[in-house]
Amino acid sequence: MRNFDEFTITDAVLDRVGNATEPRIREISEALVRHLHAFVREIQPTQEEWQQGIEFLTRTGHICDDKRQEFILLSDTLGVSMLVDAINHRLPEGATETTVLGPFYVQEPPERALGADISEGMKGEPLFVSGSVSGSDGKPLVNAAVDVWHSDDDGYYDVQQLDALGGLAMRARFRTDAEGGFHFWTIKPAAYPIPHDGPVGQMLAAQGRHPWRPAHVHFMIDAPGHECLVTHVFVAGDQYLDSDVVFGVKDSLIRDFVEHPAGEAPDGRMLDRPYARLHYDFGLKPKTGKASRAA
Amino acid sequence: MRNFDEFTITDAVLDRVGNATEPRIREISEALVRHLHAFVREIQPTQEEWQQGIEFLTRTGHICDDKRQEFILLSDTLGVSMLVDAINHRLPEGATETTVLGPFYVQEPPERALGADISEGMKGEPLFVSGSVSGSDGKPLVNAAVDVWHSDDDGYYDVQQLDALGGLAMRARFRTDAEGGFHFWTIKPAAYPIPHDGPVGQMLAAQGRHPWRPAHVHFMIDAPGHECLVTHVFVAGDQYLDSDVVFGVKDSLIRDFVEHPAGEAPDGRMLDRPYARLHYDFGLKPKTGKASRAA
Ligand SMILES: [Fe+2]
Ligand SMILES: [Fe+2]
Repeated sequence: MRNFDEFTITDAVLDRVGNATEPRIREISEALVRHLHAFVREIQPTQEEWQQGIEFLTRTGHICDDKRQEFILLSDTLGVSMLVDAINHRLPEGATETTVLGPFYVQEPPERALGADISEGMKGEPLFVSGSVSGSDGKPLVNAAVDVWHSDDDGYYDVQQLDALGGLAMRARFRTDAEGGFHFWTIKPAAYPIPHDGPVGQMLAAQGRHPWRPAHVHFMIDAPGHECLVTHVFVAGDQYLDSDVVFGVKDSLIRDFVEHPAGEAPDGRMLDRPYARLHYDFGLKPKTGKASRAA
Repeated sequence: MRNFDEFTITDAVLDRVGNATEPRIREISEALVRHLHAFVREIQPTQEEWQQGIEFLTRTGHICDDKRQEFILLSDTLGVSMLVDAINHRLPEGATETTVLGPFYVQEPPERALGADISEGMKGEPLFVSGSVSGSDGKPLVNAAVDVWHSDDDGYYDVQQLDALGGLAMRARFRTDAEGGFHFWTIKPAAYPIPHDGPVGQMLAAQGRHPWRPAHVHFMIDAPGHECLVTHVFVAGDQYLDSDVVFGVKDSLIRDFVEHPAGEAPDGRMLDRPYARLHYDFGLKPKTGKASRAA
């Protein structure tokens, strides 16, 4: 167990991590060593490039705090998050497709009554959102938790401007009614660049990539007996639908945000200016009892 | 450029990073995406395991500061540092083998005169170190910079106990004399565990591995016209020579730290107690002018 060279070192490390008592840890450790060494053997980094890699990871860790998760951004922009998502969501007919969680979800968002306006007075075009939640068999799911969150008219989330806002906005938890339906008011979200003033932004610039995501509303929907659905609904026609920096767009998740003139909205509210309307019917995958990655 | 599934996402990301203008960045980005996706596709992580991975990396970044480099520890313990070292040091006959830098090097250590005692009064068995520096052709190298650093009798480096010590110790830069020789006094280093109260320690425990390194003295030797040599000399007989946590041991780097009774040392100093002696003749690889990884 010494005198390792560039050809023998990998087996030596594999031998060592084979001592893991937990089979899953052993499996992950072995795969990590094999693929990481194969990467290094392929690119043959200089010592300086290795040092730059260490420093990149260190800066990525240091910029993380309770409001910013740069490693999730890194996973997202390298397509890893969508890959993990796809592996974990091989879906039956009738189930809504999934996409990335992103870094802006807040646990236990404020519960609001159906019909509430969650814009908290932010500027922007009013948006009426309605939808339904059912199992993939089409049966309505009553009292399902529908978490929604989205960017403002300038492309920023509430958590990126908490000091200015003084609290959360464009974010809530609703409960579906007896027919599995929900509806609420907010403002129309805008396309936005992911935070790109840090290491991930430097990576994107070096790779010749823009940092933009097409406009969307996030949904996380949870109902007993069903897998938790994490997805977005994207605004049809957005210029970034074909170049989403995190590779999250699926055709089935794009909807027209239909423009309406001033007047009476579907819930009876009188609008003195034009507003947009979004409707989406969600289908949830029944829980199988097996771990989701067992597929 | 949408509707990616677990089979098409990799090509989509490769396509995107192919926009990098710098060829080397493109090469590294493409290899990273291919190997990272292959790793994920093989282990099929659950969303919870992905989250644990994100949190592991975040904790690894957060524990890094000006005295601790947890990502280097991670690279070391996964055998990556030794792999990078091997790739960058395909050596000619007569050149000393290399090993990891480790996380305890300090730039521009204090210059000391030949013969100085760098133990700064630390407890431990006195150690007389002598050696020579030549090119791989055997010609002595005059005025070469010889940086040395090592652990104390309890296995800790000065930088791990700066508050208690009030300054650096067991660390210096010497200059070789007209014959390429150097010598100095210090104390004999002890085997030590790498810092294991953080994420890397948790990884090692989960992998059923101990965190120990066999006792050694670090050397970094720099002379004009030659590649900078980064290596250790290990203490023969150490119990961890065959299980070094960072895979750094090579037979050619092991030496007897010969025990001597009290009496006159090679430099004329009178010792009132037993001491140890280490001698090592280093050979440096001439610079070729090519980037080292071109090999
Ligand atoms: Fe978003
Ligand atoms: Fe060391």
